Amino acid sequence: MTTVRVTCCQLSPRIGDLAGNVERSAAAVRTAVARGADVVVLPELVTSGYVFESVDEVTGLAITSAHAVFERWSSAAAQSRGSGSVVIGGFCERGDAGVLYNSAAVVDASGVRAVYRKTHLWDREKLWFRAGDTLPPVVDTVVGRIGVAICYDLEFPELTRHLALAGADLVAVPTNWPLVARPAGERPPEVVIAMAAARINRMAVACCDRAGTERGQEWTSASTIVSVEGWPVATSSPDQMATADLDLAAGRDKRLTDLADAFGDRRVDLYASTVGRVDG
Amino acid sequence: MTTVRVTCCQLSPRIGDLAGNVERSAAAVRTAVARGADVVVLPELVTSGYVFESVDEVTGLAITSAHAVFERWSSAAAQSRGSGSVVIGGFCERGDAGVLYNSAAVVDASGVRAVYRKTHLWDREKLWFRAGDTLPPVVDTVVGRIGVAICYDLEFPELTRHLALAGADLVAVPTNWPLVARPAGERPPEVVIAMAAARINRMAVACCDRAGTERGQEWTSASTIVSVEGWPVATSSPDQMATADLDLAAGRDKRLTDLADAFGDRRVDLYASTVGRVDG
Repeated sequence: MTTVRVTCCQLSPRIGDLAGNVERSAAAVRTAVARGADVVVLPELVTSGYVFESVDEVTGLAITSAHAVFERWSSAAAQSRGSGSVVIGGFCERGDAGVLYNSAAVVDASGVRAVYRKTHLWDREKLWFRAGDTLPPVVDTVVGRIGVAICYDLEFPELTRHLALAGADLVAVPTNWPLVARPAGERPPEVVIAMAAARINRMAVACCDRAGTERGQEWTSASTIVSVEGWPVATSSPDQMATADLDLAAGRDKRLTDLADAFGDRRVDLYASTVGRVDG
Repeated sequence: MTTVRVTCCQLSPRIGDLAGNVERSAAAVRTAVARGADVVVLPELVTSGYVFESVDEVTGLAITSAHAVFERWSSAAAQSRGSGSVVIGGFCERGDAGVLYNSAAVVDASGVRAVYRKTHLWDREKLWFRAGDTLPPVVDTVVGRIGVAICYDLEFPELTRHLALAGADLVAVPTNWPLVARPAGERPPEVVIAMAAARINRMAVACCDRAGTERGQEWTSASTIVSVEGWPVATSSPDQMATADLDLAAGRDKRLTDLADAFGDRRVDLYASTVGRVDG
């Protein structure tokens, strides 16, 4: 594994326009792959849009992992001039018995490699979706081991630590960040959290936000790629791509000095009794 | 509980000068309390210095929690014009059978309230100290519930989450941050980690770094106080105090929206099987 080129495609999905969102996302993946991307990250719910008004609307936009959009992403990934590209994108999923999930797919030239159902639902997502019942996977791909998280998931260090311990070189984070207040000159708080998760775990993090406004909701539009040392190495303006070449291999060595190790120094003997604790 | 004034006294302890370090630390606490500090945080190992050359040197500087320095801090805390002040400072501890620890004491007008022995030893600290066998306490004081962490501890989200779940309003972090490389314009990585821990847990964090150089070791000298929203509200230059007035009560409400809650949204059902996992 050498340098891996990661691109976040900060699109503006249109609520309700499934066919158009499929086209726009596939076109973005094609462009990114043509520019050498080994990993392409798309926003959360890129097929459907985000600000739903009813369960019926969500149901009408939900798709299964057999939908044609994944074949489109897969075909685009197959055009890689390298060893193959990998696409991670969010979608509105219809599962068994019509249950709805806020999901992300990991797709490569061979097709859908994994589907993850968001385990930490944000705010009104709880009105539409069922939370997933499994922590996210780490998928071993030709370009490295890719973990997945969706938006609010990132704010739970239990989840990012899980991905790191499961061997993730990179966490791909499809996201829709609602714009929140922050002091002048500060990065969005979600980016600070991504930086800390990367630094602590020596694991790159690529957050693909969305652009535009939707039914009055303003988005942060701050896609950011963070290195294994925890520094932002690419950010994007609205409707732009953010691209960075990452040395993911460096993150596999968790040593910080000859006598310090980010994983080896964990006090698993002490955590066991407390971290699973149920609080009110 | 109303606004709480927190002061970090970024001192320059002198290696080997126990008597002088006692005087300097007590004087700093007196000054901070005179300026209205409800909580005073001192650096890690403020009684001894940090860059040791041998176990014998550490042994010669180690003190018990009955040492006069704590009476000095306690007397200074008793001068508070408010309801009473609390001091958290690092010291080189001699425990039972002469075992050495990198510890921190929580002291108020009544004396030593708690001693915490650092559980995550950094680098060469492993040559001198035994790691503590208990996660840090949260001490219920007249000014709020104060959790303790020492330097490298902060880089383990298991520990900061533990403190948050145990009810900490504020984490006091005596620290000695060795200067590390960072991109121009960036904060020290430890500060980014403190910001994320604060934001994720809605819990203030006050890191008291040290100043000066010691046996060739340069320190970051970047004491920082972070609000419950995760923003730095005070930082200090070398040999200065950093002071902030914090609304700690705000952090007791973990709701982020009517339908989102930083603690309530944790998926304890999923973490239990993974976070205690032992990895190589």
